[in-house]
Amino acid sequence: MPLPVSRDDIRAAHERIRPHIRRTPVWNLPSGTLGHDGPLSLKLELFQHAGSFKPRGAFNTLLTQPIPKAGVAAASGGNHGAAVAYAAKQLGIPARIFVPEISSPAKVEIIRRFGAEVVIGGQRYADALSACGTYIAESGALSIHAYDAVPTIQGQGTVALEWEEDAPGLDTVLVAVGGGGLIAGIASAWAGRGVRVVGVEPEGSRALHASLEAGRPVDVTVESIAADSLGARNTGELVFTLAKAAVDHVALVKDEAIREAQRTLWRDWRLASEPGGATALAALLSGAYRPKPGERVGVLLCGANVELSKLAALFT
Amino acid sequence: MPLPVSRDDIRAAHERIRPHIRRTPVWNLPSGTLGHDGPLSLKLELFQHAGSFKPRGAFNTLLTQPIPKAGVAAASGGNHGAAVAYAAKQLGIPARIFVPEISSPAKVEIIRRFGAEVVIGGQRYADALSACGTYIAESGALSIHAYDAVPTIQGQGTVALEWEEDAPGLDTVLVAVGGGGLIAGIASAWAGRGVRVVGVEPEGSRALHASLEAGRPVDVTVESIAADSLGARNTGELVFTLAKAAVDHVALVKDEAIREAQRTLWRDWRLASEPGGATALAALLSGAYRPKPGERVGVLLCGANVELSKLAALFT
Repeated sequence: MPLPVSRDDIRAAHERIRPHIRRTPVWNLPSGTLGHDGPLSLKLELFQHAGSFKPRGAFNTLLTQPIPKAGVAAASGGNHGAAVAYAAKQLGIPARIFVPEISSPAKVEIIRRFGAEVVIGGQRYADALSACGTYIAESGALSIHAYDAVPTIQGQGTVALEWEEDAPGLDTVLVAVGGGGLIAGIASAWAGRGVRVVGVEPEGSRALHASLEAGRPVDVTVESIAADSLGARNTGELVFTLAKAAVDHVALVKDEAIREAQRTLWRDWRLASEPGGATALAALLSGAYRPKPGERVGVLLCGANVELSKLAALFT
Repeated sequence: MPLPVSRDDIRAAHERIRPHIRRTPVWNLPSGTLGHDGPLSLKLELFQHAGSFKPRGAFNTLLTQPIPKAGVAAASGGNHGAAVAYAAKQLGIPARIFVPEISSPAKVEIIRRFGAEVVIGGQRYADALSACGTYIAESGALSIHAYDAVPTIQGQGTVALEWEEDAPGLDTVLVAVGGGGLIAGIASAWAGRGVRVVGVEPEGSRALHASLEAGRPVDVTVESIAADSLGARNTGELVFTLAKAAVDHVALVKDEAIREAQRTLWRDWRLASEPGGATALAALLSGAYRPKPGERVGVLLCGANVELSKLAALFT
C-alpha cells in the first residue's frame, strides 16, 4: 500500500513553497568532528524564517487550501504559532494565534511581531486549543495542524530534498521528534531510498517511541526541558502510520544530554539553539545513537528560538 | 612592484592550514534579502574555531615559523588571544597570553579553556603589550602579531579562496576592519581580479580610513562599541601598503548601525554576532555602502564572541 505522503507530493510541495522559505545551509564536516569517526553533515534549519523548520508546513498548507475570509487560526505559544503567523503575514492572510498563559513572553512577542492577533486562551495548552477550536467553529477560519496533517507533513519533508542535494550519500539522519510532523515528512521523502531515518526524543517526552512500542498512537505524559517544542502528548494517526513504515527507530536522550548539546553548540560552534533544536545532536554526543566508523551521519538542527538569557544560564 | 603578499602565498597558506581550520559555510541568498536588490552572499566565518577568523593567521604563523622552546606569546584579551591559544593547543605548543585587566571575563575564560597560561599584564592594552614584549625578550618566545605581519595576513586571506569557490562572480565584498589583517589578506587574494573589496570601520575606530586619507599609517583615538575586536589605533605599514593598493575604499558606520545589524542578525536570522562581526553588514543595512541594483554583494560575518547577556541587552 502506498504511503499517505509520497516523495512526489513532497517534491510538489517544495516547488510550491520554495519562493517563500530559506534554503538553509548544509555544513558538511570531515571525520572526527564532534567525536564522530566519519563524515558529518549538519542541516542548519535553525536559521529558517521564524527560527524553526515549521514555516515549510505552514506555507504548504496556506498555499494548497482555500483561505476563508476569517483567515487562519492555530493554538500554539511556540514555534508553530510563530510559523503560522509568519507565513500568513507573507501571504497577506489574517491570523489569530491562541496561546496559553504559560507561554514564554519571548515567543509570544515573536508571534505578535509577525502581525498575528494573539489571544490568551486560558492557562494551559489544552485551554488554548479548546478556545481555538471554538473560534474556528464560529468563524470558519482555517485550522493549521502543527504536525498530524498531510499538507503540514509534505511541507516539513522538503528539508530532505534540499539536504540530499547538498550532502549526497548520507547513511543515517538524526531528527528530533515532537509531534512528529518533521520526521514523518523526512521519512516519507526517503522511504525505500537507503537513508536510515532515526528519531530522537527526550526520555520525558516520548510520544513516538511509546506509540511504536504499543503498535498504535498512545498518550504519554510530558516532562522535559524540550517540552516547549517537542512536548506533544500524542503523535496522531497519520504521523504514526508514516513513522511505523519509514522511521528506523527512535533513540531516547536525557534532558542533561540535551543541555550538553546546547552547550557544545554555543561554546564550540557559536550556534545558538533551543532545547528541541539540539536534541538530535544530543543522541550523537551522548551515545544514545552510536554510528559505525565511517558512517555518513546527518544531524538536523531544527530550531533556534531560545531566550538568550536561558542559553547563558546553561553556563552558570 | 608586486605586493608583499601574493595570491600564491595565500594559496600556499590555505594548503597549510586547511587540516586545522573549519571550512565555514557560505550562504548564497536571492535578491531581496536584507533589503538588497541583487544576490547576496554571507560567508559565515563567525563559526570558525575560537569564534572568529583569527585562527587562520595564527595557524599559518605557527606552521611557518621555528617554534622556540618557550612557545608563543601574544598580548590580547580578545579574539587574537583566543585564536593563538586555540592554535597553539592544537599543535602542542605552549602559549602565554597577556591580557589587560579590562578584558571581558568571558573572553579570558575562552583563552584559559584552550589551555594557555593567562597573565594579567596591567590595567590597559598597552600595559599588556609591554609585559608581553618584556617576556618575549627574556624568554625567546615567538610573538604572533594580530594583524601587521606577513604570515598573519596570508592566513586571513584564505577566507577569499573559499568564498570565491562557493560564490563565484561576486562584484563586491564588505569586510570589517580593525587592525586590517583580514582585509589586507582578502584584498591581496583578489587584487586585480575584479572583486571590489570594501572595508567597513566604526566612525569611532577608523585607523584604516584615516591612514588612507593621510597617505600613511596614522594613529587614531578609539571609542566604539566594536572596540574590543576592531579597536586598533594604527594599522601598521604592511596593512597600509596592501590596503592602499587593493582596497577600494573604507565605509564608516555609526555604533547604532552596528547594534542594529546585531539585532537584525539575531532577530531575523538567529545568528549571534559580536559588534565587530556585524560591522560589515551594518554598512549594507544603514546605507553607508549602497550597492547598485543587481550587484552581487558579499558580506563577511567574521566574529561571534559575544556575551549572550550583552546580545540580550540590545533588545531591552
